[in-house]
Amino acid sequence: MAEPTLAIIAGAGVLPRMLSQALRATGREHLICCPHGLEPELPDNESTEVEEFFFERSISFFRSLEKRGIRQVVMVGKFHRPRSINFMRLEGSTLMAAPRILGSLRRGDDASLRALAEIIEELGLEVVGVEAVAPNLLPEPGLYASRVPSETDRSDVERAAYIVEAISAVDVGQGAVVAGGLCLATESLPGTDAMLEWVAQTRDQPPAGTRSGVLYKAPKLDQDRRMDLPAIGPTTVAKAAAAGLAGIAWEARGALLLDAERTMAEADRLGMFLWARPSLR
Amino acid sequence: MAEPTLAIIAGAGVLPRMLSQALRATGREHLICCPHGLEPELPDNESTEVEEFFFERSISFFRSLEKRGIRQVVMVGKFHRPRSINFMRLEGSTLMAAPRILGSLRRGDDASLRALAEIIEELGLEVVGVEAVAPNLLPEPGLYASRVPSETDRSDVERAAYIVEAISAVDVGQGAVVAGGLCLATESLPGTDAMLEWVAQTRDQPPAGTRSGVLYKAPKLDQDRRMDLPAIGPTTVAKAAAAGLAGIAWEARGALLLDAERTMAEADRLGMFLWARPSLR
Repeated sequence: MAEPTLAIIAGAGVLPRMLSQALRATGREHLICCPHGLEPELPDNESTEVEEFFFERSISFFRSLEKRGIRQVVMVGKFHRPRSINFMRLEGSTLMAAPRILGSLRRGDDASLRALAEIIEELGLEVVGVEAVAPNLLPEPGLYASRVPSETDRSDVERAAYIVEAISAVDVGQGAVVAGGLCLATESLPGTDAMLEWVAQTRDQPPAGTRSGVLYKAPKLDQDRRMDLPAIGPTTVAKAAAAGLAGIAWEARGALLLDAERTMAEADRLGMFLWARPSLR
Repeated sequence: MAEPTLAIIAGAGVLPRMLSQALRATGREHLICCPHGLEPELPDNESTEVEEFFFERSISFFRSLEKRGIRQVVMVGKFHRPRSINFMRLEGSTLMAAPRILGSLRRGDDASLRALAEIIEELGLEVVGVEAVAPNLLPEPGLYASRVPSETDRSDVERAAYIVEAISAVDVGQGAVVAGGLCLATESLPGTDAMLEWVAQTRDQPPAGTRSGVLYKAPKLDQDRRMDLPAIGPTTVAKAAAAGLAGIAWEARGALLLDAERTMAEADRLGMFLWARPSLR
């Protein structure tokens, strides 16, 4: 078996597992690296190496990867600011880099990931995106469930797409909910699931048996597409249904479809559309 | 006593009462007109005329105002789409205008108010803003409570101002909450109070006794300033406090300070700043 030349830096959530499965399907060897304190879901087989590392020792960890023959790194899942830094564990080189990372956290999460990617690349590794290693996770334009969006749905999707563009231009969020032309919620720090729960709580629910309104997701306008792409999965479908929405749309090739078969089956079961829409631009 | 030449079209909330009080203080006679189904707070004296009218008969109602000598109309408070239209009550002229109003509701609430204002003006009345009749409700730049915003507060306010500008450019909302550079929430249909309750529910609260983060409010970018200006009042202060925020800022001359004495006293009691900040542009 070939030595892996690719490492997944695994943030929280299902994404590292999905990516690992997709890579295995194409025969690409890889190892998975988990920053201590995050909770990624990991593949349930033993053939893929998993290593934990400490934020406080990131620099020497990435150096060691480079020495072991890793050439490419892909960052997937949710990353958050470490809750505390253990000074006993903190090495000098990481301490030197910390202000760049922590400073950029003030500007929004995309900026901080980009700062981290820069540091990794300075250490001789190439940071690549999901598109480069598992493009099949990023759906092409089209419908991914049986329901077809109505004219009203399409115009809600279009309005939502403009709203997401506006909030993304100020690095705030990657999603919005629009129903009947009215914006019910825009995404901010708490994320998509929290936004959908809020819509379920606050909206005047459409009459029983009917659904209206859409969730739209797209990458931020000047997002570094190598990391933090929006993702749609079974949970998104369930929460959008609980919020009374008619469907989910996203920018084609700009969002990940997770657990694709289950997600599509759930959307069909609940009578919702799934639409990868060509980009606004 | 002079016949009134000014009518307040009263939406829901405290604003019609505040405006009526401010007008009385300057001796300007006026009457208050309430669309049936909204719940404005009304002045507690009997010297000001109050009339209810039906949405279904708006056109003839505005015509009758014009005939009675009303020259100016000011629209304040929250207006929402009527929940149902009573066809028995619907007159032909209002029916003819309804598509313009209801159609524009699809574009966002500012658009619909503007359509309504257009119709009123076609009937020979002038639609004016609060600024024209009670400019003292729109604070000039300055601090309106004892607490002074820190450097961090100021940079949060600036980031929030850019975010509000972005969401307002797509006619979504007039407010945002930012803490430590991170956007915790942006305003959409449910409004400012609902947004602040959401922040109180979802944020990691700052340590007891400390506050951090700001609420910022500003009119929408291309808002018709004759109507639907953002407003800050005692409820805003209480809800911002419950969300752990350090203070409230707004665009100077672009937002109404309601119940000014009580609002300022509450902010002082809770140790929060109130800052009318010069506009970004």
